[in-house]
Amino acid sequence: MTESWATFGADLHVELSAGRGLRAGLTEALREAARSGRLAPGTRLPSSRSLAADLGIARNTVAEAYAELVAEGRLTARQGSGTRVAERVPERRAVAAAPVRRPVRAKTSYSLMPGSPDLGGFPRAAWLAAARRALADAPNEAFGYGDPRGRVELREALAGYLARARGVYADPERIVLCAGFAQGMLLMAKLLRARRVRDIAVEGYGLDVHRDLLTGAGLRTRPLEVDAEGARTQDLASTAGAAAGHGVGAVLLTPAHQFPTGAALTPVRRAAAVDWARSTGGLVLEDDYDGEFRYDRQPVGALQGLDPDRVVYMGTASKSLAPGLRMGWMVVPAGLMDEVLGAKGRDAWTSGVLDQLTLAEFIRSGAYDRHVRGMRLRYRRRRDELVAAVGDRAGVSGIAAGLHAVLDLGPGGERAALRAAAWQDLGLQPLSSFRHPEAAGAAREALVVGFGTPSQSAWAPTLAALVAALP
Amino acid sequence: MTESWATFGADLHVELSAGRGLRAGLTEALREAARSGRLAPGTRLPSSRSLAADLGIARNTVAEAYAELVAEGRLTARQGSGTRVAERVPERRAVAAAPVRRPVRAKTSYSLMPGSPDLGGFPRAAWLAAARRALADAPNEAFGYGDPRGRVELREALAGYLARARGVYADPERIVLCAGFAQGMLLMAKLLRARRVRDIAVEGYGLDVHRDLLTGAGLRTRPLEVDAEGARTQDLASTAGAAAGHGVGAVLLTPAHQFPTGAALTPVRRAAAVDWARSTGGLVLEDDYDGEFRYDRQPVGALQGLDPDRVVYMGTASKSLAPGLRMGWMVVPAGLMDEVLGAKGRDAWTSGVLDQLTLAEFIRSGAYDRHVRGMRLRYRRRRDELVAAVGDRAGVSGIAAGLHAVLDLGPGGERAALRAAAWQDLGLQPLSSFRHPEAAGAAREALVVGFGTPSQSAWAPTLAALVAALP
Repeated sequence: MTESWATFGADLHVELSAGRGLRAGLTEALREAARSGRLAPGTRLPSSRSLAADLGIARNTVAEAYAELVAEGRLTARQGSGTRVAERVPERRAVAAAPVRRPVRAKTSYSLMPGSPDLGGFPRAAWLAAARRALADAPNEAFGYGDPRGRVELREALAGYLARARGVYADPERIVLCAGFAQGMLLMAKLLRARRVRDIAVEGYGLDVHRDLLTGAGLRTRPLEVDAEGARTQDLASTAGAAAGHGVGAVLLTPAHQFPTGAALTPVRRAAAVDWARSTGGLVLEDDYDGEFRYDRQPVGALQGLDPDRVVYMGTASKSLAPGLRMGWMVVPAGLMDEVLGAKGRDAWTSGVLDQLTLAEFIRSGAYDRHVRGMRLRYRRRRDELVAAVGDRAGVSGIAAGLHAVLDLGPGGERAALRAAAWQDLGLQPLSSFRHPEAAGAAREALVVGFGTPSQSAWAPTLAALVAALP
Repeated sequence: MTESWATFGADLHVELSAGRGLRAGLTEALREAARSGRLAPGTRLPSSRSLAADLGIARNTVAEAYAELVAEGRLTARQGSGTRVAERVPERRAVAAAPVRRPVRAKTSYSLMPGSPDLGGFPRAAWLAAARRALADAPNEAFGYGDPRGRVELREALAGYLARARGVYADPERIVLCAGFAQGMLLMAKLLRARRVRDIAVEGYGLDVHRDLLTGAGLRTRPLEVDAEGARTQDLASTAGAAAGHGVGAVLLTPAHQFPTGAALTPVRRAAAVDWARSTGGLVLEDDYDGEFRYDRQPVGALQGLDPDRVVYMGTASKSLAPGLRMGWMVVPAGLMDEVLGAKGRDAWTSGVLDQLTLAEFIRSGAYDRHVRGMRLRYRRRRDELVAAVGDRAGVSGIAAGLHAVLDLGPGGERAALRAAAWQDLGLQPLSSFRHPEAAGAAREALVVGFGTPSQSAWAPTLAALVAALP
């Protein structure tokens, strides 16, 4: 079966990561695709620079693989027409009629699943430069068992950054580094259980893995309705508590950019959340997962700035840099530090000290700001292209910030779109999959489109596939 | 109060890590020490190369600090006599009579506390080189949420290394990476609790933090007596079970080098542990924390090789490289993989992907073997110097491997030695502090001496302080 380059290219990641040398792996994958007809004669390959960027490998590696296949006569390279699959590949005619054994796909070819940044955007060179400086400067004791809060260098760098960029009231003494947001949330769940808290309010739309994590820790999640102004925090005192027979002890919110609906929590609702916490002694857990990426006006500050004694601020490098770093941070109310460190234990829950020191240097040197600015431009352009391409086929919302948009469809729209997307190997997630099982109110038929997910070269064909899948 | 360089130098780590620029911090610390008389006139400073190595900073940084202070007249530098505190420091006489405000010590000046490698031995240059190659080679998808077992590159590199160096039956598919040994053990505790296991046998001497971690996870620890042949695994079926009223479901062992007594588990006792596991369906958790560092003969292979279906092998980079990396690994019996991954959860418990890829490259390139060989030589030399210096003042044992030795003393010896050590600011840990509260048999009066802990330049004075502290 013949494929477009975009379809084939999306599989390359998987095939290249299987362990062989990169150049050999790439050469073999391209050779086999040309030989089997999976890539049709004449198919234009991306430039070596562009493919190297997509795969995250050295340009030379790609150029050498291309050169080898040109020498073999599988590819042709001509000035002005780029690199293409050769028209007359020796074995091709003989093989074309025979059934071609197609490798099983490890994932869908295109993905607009929300939750991931463009992994091709990871700033490898700048990160390595920061790592070099961090390694040269680190005192020996940094390599030992350290402060359970994490390295002071990173806590200091983050305190400055969070105050400046997110309006967080951040004292390095009250920052606790953790291995990603999930571990921070698990830690807070443990703390709440130790306080005999049984119920935690969550947003009526949210990540099921977060809900499962809270449930696994012994908490019961109570949904708050979500509308265009964010979660209905004014219901914290009544609905959720009434349903449980007694009050909830904490609430988990995404105030800057509700996940997944994309609403920003309004000032009135922010005040309601803090008032609730003050009057009941409850805690607000603020999940600020993509607060850096706001497009339409200045970033919406963190809720934590309203009351640093009642709000636990939780941030992460998973969207701004990469999930693979497994780095997150919490800014903890002063009165809670002992409990948090007690729940954390002596040496568990820290990420590696070299990543910590490198991120500190990355922030301090200004590289983090530069990277976020660059990615913001990239995502903003995609967002604008998405809005233009969708036109009036669906209602687009939640796009003032972040890496995803919500596309509202008519009744039956979710199912129709998912079926059409499956035909195109396009990974899409319906809004209904984020709905709390006990959520009240009418369910919306919509798609949550993670426009940050595709690599640069896959973006255009992925967007085309989405438009084709819309009812 | 005047101090020797060694005493002063041991504090430098702490002072330098407080956040200022390294050169400014070092210059200021030395200036103040010379000004206040903390370092007496004429005190010889280490060479810039040697101090840089101890502090883990660039040699130039030290050389520049020295040069600045020479220019100020605080230090003198003469060919052949090295760098010394100047004889006539301008303010010194005026200040000397006044009480000198001494900074509070953050840790003892010398430390022979067990559990840490020489942090100055971390192979910074080789690690950075491996990181550079790993970053250049990593496919983009590596930066995303990944396999809950960790990156395949590292699992493959470890499988080869563990089979070759530790006799582990290791399939990359059954290796699970975790953020240090403690997290692996917590994961196994969770799994045992999910299986309704209530009691776990542990060695009668061991780390209280490990016991606390197991207890915190809801298990009861039952001590096995430890003697010169290691833990009495032949008692697994009887004593421990009888005491509990029913059998134990697992046992945690340090077969290669019992911690802290240093015994190697004999073949008969290894067989007894595996027989017990086979006949009862129990699990053996093998903590192979320092198996790389054996001096007297070929490394003692891992117990896991005897029965990969009954033994969970657990290794770590904390002793061979650095605890700050927070990297550990488990080799899990095939039948247990689903349970382990279930307990691990979707994205918790992984260390950062860059460290994983870097360690994979570090192992693959042979740098890990070279590093371990180099450190083994360093530790072996220290061990021999320790034995020679102690002479017949104490019985030395447990030194066929690892980074610590046990010094047996007469009745009252522990207390006398600790008191004498405190006078010298020497950190020492008595064997009694490792004893399980319910352990049977007579308690030994002994010291557990972590000879791996001091930096290279602190080793000689630290050893002298130890000898002075022995009764």
